[in-house]
Amino acid sequence: MALIVQKFGGTSVADVNRIKAVAQRVKSEVDAGHQIAVVVSAMAGVTNQLVGYVDDISKLYDAREYDAVVASGEQVTSGLLALALQDIGVSARSWQGWQIPIHTNDVHAKARITGIDTDKIQARLQEGEVVVVPGFQGVAPDGRITTLGRGGSDTSAVALAAALKAHRCDIYTDVDGVYTCDPRIVTKARKLSKITYEEMLEMASQGAKVLQTRAVEMAMNHGVRTEVRSSFSAERGTLVVNEEEIVEKQVVSGIAYSRDEAKITLVRVADRPGVAASIFGPLAEASVNVDMIVQNVSADGKATDMTFTVTKSDLERTKSIIQSKKAEIGYEDLVAKDGVVKISIIGVGMRSHAGVAQTMFQTLADKGINIQVISTSEIKVSVLIAEEYTELAVRALHTAYGLDAA
Amino acid sequence: MALIVQKFGGTSVADVNRIKAVAQRVKSEVDAGHQIAVVVSAMAGVTNQLVGYVDDISKLYDAREYDAVVASGEQVTSGLLALALQDIGVSARSWQGWQIPIHTNDVHAKARITGIDTDKIQARLQEGEVVVVPGFQGVAPDGRITTLGRGGSDTSAVALAAALKAHRCDIYTDVDGVYTCDPRIVTKARKLSKITYEEMLEMASQGAKVLQTRAVEMAMNHGVRTEVRSSFSAERGTLVVNEEEIVEKQVVSGIAYSRDEAKITLVRVADRPGVAASIFGPLAEASVNVDMIVQNVSADGKATDMTFTVTKSDLERTKSIIQSKKAEIGYEDLVAKDGVVKISIIGVGMRSHAGVAQTMFQTLADKGINIQVISTSEIKVSVLIAEEYTELAVRALHTAYGLDAA
Repeated sequence: MALIVQKFGGTSVADVNRIKAVAQRVKSEVDAGHQIAVVVSAMAGVTNQLVGYVDDISKLYDAREYDAVVASGEQVTSGLLALALQDIGVSARSWQGWQIPIHTNDVHAKARITGIDTDKIQARLQEGEVVVVPGFQGVAPDGRITTLGRGGSDTSAVALAAALKAHRCDIYTDVDGVYTCDPRIVTKARKLSKITYEEMLEMASQGAKVLQTRAVEMAMNHGVRTEVRSSFSAERGTLVVNEEEIVEKQVVSGIAYSRDEAKITLVRVADRPGVAASIFGPLAEASVNVDMIVQNVSADGKATDMTFTVTKSDLERTKSIIQSKKAEIGYEDLVAKDGVVKISIIGVGMRSHAGVAQTMFQTLADKGINIQVISTSEIKVSVLIAEEYTELAVRALHTAYGLDAA
Repeated sequence: MALIVQKFGGTSVADVNRIKAVAQRVKSEVDAGHQIAVVVSAMAGVTNQLVGYVDDISKLYDAREYDAVVASGEQVTSGLLALALQDIGVSARSWQGWQIPIHTNDVHAKARITGIDTDKIQARLQEGEVVVVPGFQGVAPDGRITTLGRGGSDTSAVALAAALKAHRCDIYTDVDGVYTCDPRIVTKARKLSKITYEEMLEMASQGAKVLQTRAVEMAMNHGVRTEVRSSFSAERGTLVVNEEEIVEKQVVSGIAYSRDEAKITLVRVADRPGVAASIFGPLAEASVNVDMIVQNVSADGKATDMTFTVTKSDLERTKSIIQSKKAEIGYEDLVAKDGVVKISIIGVGMRSHAGVAQTMFQTLADKGINIQVISTSEIKVSVLIAEEYTELAVRALHTAYGLDAA
């Protein structure tokens, strides 16, 4: 017998029939003798509708009232799932964030969980009752409803699993696991049976979009074994675990890409101490997230070119901030460019293997693809290339690293 | 400066634009220097949708989960109205039933308010903040969400007004007040500027449908001055008050009708002590509400006819209960009949005036309308007639009692 937290996303509870199907899936784990806590999202579309109401009423809305409004979507699903479970003979009860309570700080609309009182629900679990918890919501120290930000239900589930010391946290979604690469592009992509937290974090932030980044961080910090799997099939998904649990480490576990990139080059920036700070300081203040940064060696000792990437949505803001600081920074020209894609190879095995990046560079060179920017981390190598080469590059790398399905 | 509770029903908050209009109306009272607590219903259609989900999942649903689901509709409206008020510069905050708290008993789906802690909201009102409260909901002693039954928001508003010792409770709805009779039938019907609680109770239960019966009872018990008025016009509505506040009492204040009646006659019931108990006991046990009862004088001292009315929806159940008890009761035949209407004349002035009922009987006789059953109370005379005469009877009585508008 194990304690398992199951989380079902919006498409898994999109209507009454799907909620009934979810109940059956919960029942099968109960019948297998497990204690089950279920975390649910709002029915697909509901949160967008509620956010739409708020936007229509007030552009500069009060986040406390926003939270009171949007948290209701998960409340509805939790009650409906409890009813669906009872209807098939499974003892169940819904618990709102304030009833458990799930404590958060008071940063409304983007709250962070600070603690979960598990006494009451723990007692129910031990009686064999299924505990149904609305994701995304909590309660602030002053007793007002908070929400965790979009996609926060994943975080709710992992936090609950950590607090309950659950054996596993199953994240049911509309994909059946984490793949070596996006299967829509690489038909030979394989589903990974296991992946490390660190790799998942890179995959998620690189655009894999199967699991919220904050949820992965929390799972890593608390060692919560998390499985990403499909609500619509009985197959096992991908288990996100500690590195030690993975016996046969791949050098490269997966390949990710992100089209959400824009490149800015400052031409002939003065080559003097403090110039980087003069550029990136103002951007940090404006909460612009700078990803890759490359500074070329200065040819004449006087000026150099500085290239960096931001998300497309931040491009215009970034340009106007840099242009407003032109005098302080000192540069000849600003060249902004989108139409680029970031391709990343990811794998914890990289740490102990030399030449991994070289395979990437050679593979791209063989296809005649020009690399514009390179950045590396301990378990990742990312390159920026022209967007039109996305599919070609990703498929070639997938083959080069031996990831293709047999 | 006064403390006023305002209640807005589902059609008054049906969409974002109407919620904004409600905010303007609240603002006008705030600008006039009043302290305002607002009670809101769910947006029109939302509660039906949520109840539909529950019904689709489980016919024999758990009322605790039903409450968690359906209470969310009012939660959304309360947050949206608080936002709309803030957006036009009015300080406002929403307060869920469990946050205030509004205590109820634990009869889920039909809970009764047992007390309201007004300390927190009273403090906010004194600071000039508008307090927005979702109607219909409360919290049970064990901390679970409860609801008060359909239409419960009127009760929430009156209970809040009583607890806050409000100067007035304004019930904003889609009609502009209480009329001497249904204006759809009687074009000469007049809006009443004042009506007593007792009369309103009779009008409501007789089908006037402008104010929930429980809300009127509570207003009467706590002496809450309640005004029924339109959300869509600035005109004064109808004030429901103590009899002492009405100087010029009408003998008959209004005429009500109800088509929701069915008549049952038991032919040749044994004329012996205890026969009424043998009929109505089993019906009371089955929660069938019997309205009018008439027992004819026995012609031969052996048997009599017993006639009574129930609501149409209870007719089939009533027939099967009575038929199953045929041996105990002892009767020759059961004759059930719908196609009848109950017409009532209502007025506190009746108490001190003779001949009021006689005017009714004579008026109906003059139109050739046969009276099937009569029942009277201190401030009401009701008759059962064939449904086809509804309009004719109501209009004739309206004229006969001098209620027609000039």
